[in-house]
Amino acid sequence: MSLKINCLIAQSGGPTTAINSSLAGVIHQALQSTNVDKIYGSLNGIQGVLKDDLIDLTETFHIDSNNLSTLINTPSMFLGSCRYKLSDPLVDDSDYRTIFQLFSNYNIKYFFYIGGNDSMDTVNKLSSFALKHNIDVRVIGIPKTIDNDLTCIDHTPGFGSAAKYIASSILEISHDAYIYDTKSVSIVEIMGRNAGWLTAASALARTGYSDAPHLIYLPEHPFSTASFVNDVREQLQKRNHVIIAVSEGIKDPAGKYISANSTGTDQFGHVMLSGTGKYLENLIKNTINCKVRSIELNVLQRCASHISSRTDLDEAYELGKKAFNLADQGETAKMATLTRTSNIPYTVTYGSTNVSNVANVEKCVPREWITVSGNDVTKELVDYIYPLIQGEVPLTYHNGIPAYLSVDHLFR
Amino acid sequence: MSLKINCLIAQSGGPTTAINSSLAGVIHQALQSTNVDKIYGSLNGIQGVLKDDLIDLTETFHIDSNNLSTLINTPSMFLGSCRYKLSDPLVDDSDYRTIFQLFSNYNIKYFFYIGGNDSMDTVNKLSSFALKHNIDVRVIGIPKTIDNDLTCIDHTPGFGSAAKYIASSILEISHDAYIYDTKSVSIVEIMGRNAGWLTAASALARTGYSDAPHLIYLPEHPFSTASFVNDVREQLQKRNHVIIAVSEGIKDPAGKYISANSTGTDQFGHVMLSGTGKYLENLIKNTINCKVRSIELNVLQRCASHISSRTDLDEAYELGKKAFNLADQGETAKMATLTRTSNIPYTVTYGSTNVSNVANVEKCVPREWITVSGNDVTKELVDYIYPLIQGEVPLTYHNGIPAYLSVDHLFR
Repeated sequence: MSLKINCLIAQSGGPTTAINSSLAGVIHQALQSTNVDKIYGSLNGIQGVLKDDLIDLTETFHIDSNNLSTLINTPSMFLGSCRYKLSDPLVDDSDYRTIFQLFSNYNIKYFFYIGGNDSMDTVNKLSSFALKHNIDVRVIGIPKTIDNDLTCIDHTPGFGSAAKYIASSILEISHDAYIYDTKSVSIVEIMGRNAGWLTAASALARTGYSDAPHLIYLPEHPFSTASFVNDVREQLQKRNHVIIAVSEGIKDPAGKYISANSTGTDQFGHVMLSGTGKYLENLIKNTINCKVRSIELNVLQRCASHISSRTDLDEAYELGKKAFNLADQGETAKMATLTRTSNIPYTVTYGSTNVSNVANVEKCVPREWITVSGNDVTKELVDYIYPLIQGEVPLTYHNGIPAYLSVDHLFR
Repeated sequence: MSLKINCLIAQSGGPTTAINSSLAGVIHQALQSTNVDKIYGSLNGIQGVLKDDLIDLTETFHIDSNNLSTLINTPSMFLGSCRYKLSDPLVDDSDYRTIFQLFSNYNIKYFFYIGGNDSMDTVNKLSSFALKHNIDVRVIGIPKTIDNDLTCIDHTPGFGSAAKYIASSILEISHDAYIYDTKSVSIVEIMGRNAGWLTAASALARTGYSDAPHLIYLPEHPFSTASFVNDVREQLQKRNHVIIAVSEGIKDPAGKYISANSTGTDQFGHVMLSGTGKYLENLIKNTINCKVRSIELNVLQRCASHISSRTDLDEAYELGKKAFNLADQGETAKMATLTRTSNIPYTVTYGSTNVSNVANVEKCVPREWITVSGNDVTKELVDYIYPLIQGEVPLTYHNGIPAYLSVDHLFR
């Protein structure tokens, strides 16, 4: 009988272009470990564990294989996702019993969950349950979210690539807007319910010749439509083309979302938004007589792997490796983290934190990194994001489009 | 006194990522010509000629200079644009007298206008006026438009890069959509008022593992909302995630735009659209109980130079060179064209056509290249687009974002 153990990986929450790089990092380390026999993937996050819907990754990936390097560059989530919240085990422990029974059936001793703060809630609950019931399964969280809203980590994998996409796209949108000699306003709506990190990244579009975006509005600062219209009027005095970056999650001074048509709430009670940019477009149309366009970057900001940040994918990979090492060293209830040790030159170290510190906590942009007027960000914030978008990822193209790894196992 | 002549270049209409490559082609050829002294650029199209708003390009660009190669990769329009329609000279010839007086003042003998079918109307009128009044100025059109709706040419520069962006983005959007195990519909709205070429390019997103988009609707086929809802229902029987590509310009059987909120007409009488995708999103929400999202690719499909087609930029460059050669050989009232001489291997030859054949004419997708059901395109159409998106353009990045050529002369 083999003394080797098996490990299981799952992904949860919203997509990023870096989350598969973390998956690749775990697989890489597990393949090299003499302790590990099989590497399993759970389809659709913890739901795949509950439904016994696992796939064997051991045969698919080999060290230095094309599949592993293609996985790093493939957007979104190779193992699929879910938004499933485990109940309090004191109220209902049926999910927990199902999960740990499956772990036992498959001899799974290490479980890795790659996700954001909701997913860290799952890591926290499962590891606490295992510790309480003396179950020998190590549960480790691996951070990811384009929103960069996790605590206990300098920044999150996925954020740098989204930031690079946003900054590059805003520069391109500016070139597009600058061509006419008539006045125009372009409003770019960027993801972020409560944290404005992604919208702040738009400031990195500024070059020696283009200072767009000229106005930046984050959800951390109360949004006044009257001040907004004044800001735009002022900018139109100075230039023909005003480019504006605005977070989908901007709120009025009473804390209500500006979005014209909020469409409900998700399972975690988050308001689902759409239409902030469109609302502001109509506002400018009705108050200022000039051409206005709103552009919603939409899901491409989290899935455009054709313009990922090298720094981001490399760090995501290292966090995957670190997570495996933590489990292998006997740790549980931890999330792999990174700490910035220097900004110029940019260096980081990898470590861990108790996952209970991270679960369900949201890290917003500090007020002092937003200008007093509330319509721009400070140099400190730009300096913070700057290293995270550096470096490009050479992609292979097939038939003129990026060659990504097949995800047909998600269609069964 | 020098016997050398000067030449002038201007750009007009909507942006593409290839129009600066044509500009670079003209400059390249003019720099090599022993006939040419100065190369001028007119800012904001023909309006710059009317306002005597020219810049001297001779000093900015040199053969094999970094500026010339950066210009090729820079999105949108280095010289700015306009949407200005010359009046019939029999009704009012004041613009014509202003323009040819400026040409005389600057010793401009060759005038190149890079644009779409509206711009070719300008080329046609100016060259006819010059011929009629025995003015020795040669006027040559250079085609560009992401819409691919010009006649007398196999396809237009700008289309291939937009098609590559659209196909790549649809693949990435599909990866993003595939991750949940619940039913969802994603509607991607693509540019094209009357011609569906760009929307058809979405079919090139299909890979060995992903057959998205599952439904494609072009403006050339009458759009029925009832059939659309049935199509979506049928697709949802077969798969969890339905990805739909739809042209902004789809029209009902009576010829009226489906777009919920058309916002007026532009100077050429074109209806300005927004919201087709949003309208269909609401339609599906109200008829089928599943998650729906609409994504408008918006201006990025015409300005995302970070994912241009090598084939497209090369052809745009060659058309610029061809246009110069036409003028240099004594031609006028022509548009430079390209003809596909073979599909496998893909080859083209460069030639010319009388610009009067092209002005104000729109080339739509032939009915036989749309499936009978009207919700997909045929293999012939895919085979036609396929070569145009091939090849990538290595970009230089600076500070993590693409390094484009400064357009600060547009802000004066």
